[in-house]
Amino acid sequence: MQINIPDDHPRAESLRIREKLIEGCLNGVVAYAGLIAHGRGEAFDYLIGEQTVEPAKRAIEAAVAALLTAEHPVISVNGNAAALVPQDLVKLAEITGAKLEVNLFYRSPEREEAIKRVLESAGAKEVLGVGENASARIPEVGSERRRVDPRGILIADVVLVPLEDGDRTEALVKMGKTVIAIDLNPLSRTAQTATITIVDNIIRAIPAMVSAAQRLKGQEDSLLRKILNEFDNRQNLAEMIEFIANRLKEIAKSKMSTASSGGF
Amino acid sequence: MQINIPDDHPRAESLRIREKLIEGCLNGVVAYAGLIAHGRGEAFDYLIGEQTVEPAKRAIEAAVAALLTAEHPVISVNGNAAALVPQDLVKLAEITGAKLEVNLFYRSPEREEAIKRVLESAGAKEVLGVGENASARIPEVGSERRRVDPRGILIADVVLVPLEDGDRTEALVKMGKTVIAIDLNPLSRTAQTATITIVDNIIRAIPAMVSAAQRLKGQEDSLLRKILNEFDNRQNLAEMIEFIANRLKEIAKSKMSTASSGGF
Repeated sequence: MQINIPDDHPRAESLRIREKLIEGCLNGVVAYAGLIAHGRGEAFDYLIGEQTVEPAKRAIEAAVAALLTAEHPVISVNGNAAALVPQDLVKLAEITGAKLEVNLFYRSPEREEAIKRVLESAGAKEVLGVGENASARIPEVGSERRRVDPRGILIADVVLVPLEDGDRTEALVKMGKTVIAIDLNPLSRTAQTATITIVDNIIRAIPAMVSAAQRLKGQEDSLLRKILNEFDNRQNLAEMIEFIANRLKEIAKSKMSTASSGGF
Repeated sequence: MQINIPDDHPRAESLRIREKLIEGCLNGVVAYAGLIAHGRGEAFDYLIGEQTVEPAKRAIEAAVAALLTAEHPVISVNGNAAALVPQDLVKLAEITGAKLEVNLFYRSPEREEAIKRVLESAGAKEVLGVGENASARIPEVGSERRRVDPRGILIADVVLVPLEDGDRTEALVKMGKTVIAIDLNPLSRTAQTATITIVDNIIRAIPAMVSAAQRLKGQEDSLLRKILNEFDNRQNLAEMIEFIANRLKEIAKSKMSTASSGGF
């Protein structure tokens, strides 16, 4: 499966990320369904122009403010996140004082261990949620009940879930937690349900969160709470959807004007 | 990996298709990259509302007219297509007199054989492009040269490529062939390069092509050529992009109007 990607390929960067995911799948870190999920993300990333747009930047600020003012912040890590940005996840946890917890939709002891190893190789000193440690259960809508670590997500007030599904996001919100989601689809149930939704590729969002955390750490609590209070997730999501729609409109217009007259 | 999908899950149908693909991957029919590609398709399908919209219906008519008026029509089959709609591909080949040819981006003798078996189980009497039969090479941009069957794609005047990549579509068009692509992303190079692009899910498009072929078969050649001549692919693609943009605009508007005032 080793593929040589020519540097001049129009989608070289995207292809390299894709290869990381496939490698993660071969190493037991990424689930098959994780590959499909990545494809969905690719499509939406393409639509937003593979850039961190303004509403996402505001969501990143608010998310970091939430993590820094939290009592028990937790970063939930799944296979895709571990395969793509392990170092940055560890850095973000360190700066914000958040715990890292492995949390999978398709649980398997092997995959949990594999993800734990990836995080440890990236410098993590403690990784929650693996094996017997995920002994607590939380109620979850429409699917099997989810197990979490009683030292992590169970007692967390703020949980960052990069790449989570709708049911689980809803379950965490219903438990009263502040849920920060990173989801490239602004229309998804995850995006619509989370407290703060960052519509961006985790490849860009997690490093941007690290920078924001370095900048905001040590600031007055009142400033952080102000950032949080001024953030409106519904408004922010609507702006993201409009941004994509406008971008498509422009592309359609330019294609339309070059449309030949009849025949093919 | 057996997952129970509750019937009342909001995305049940989409989840079932996903499971078919994952099963295909486990059986060696679908490539890892095919799972990612499926995810991209899911995202765009979601944006068009998981329906066959008007421009796609027109493209389906034109595509079937092209196949029925062709001298050597060929249906190129990859892993995803074989995993999702094997019966309908065989039916379409029968009605239009097209040959079925296995054609993979990530070639492997095992996968070729696996796809051939799937098509044969679905009733195919002849499957081209497998192993030594793919002895001809065609020039291809920016990647390794592609091998095709000298009885199939090499001499084809019309080729249906459900789910093909940009480079390969371009190569076939440059060879002077009429290329029919099925691609849910109207902006992709494949969509933009093909002669006729059906922006639809193959799950719906291939059965719709079967129906159209049953209806149009036996019609006057002049009628079929008229359908073809009246079809404008650039115009059609622009309409698809506009359709998605308008749909997003409406969603954004409805989200915006329910946006709460400040805070989260």
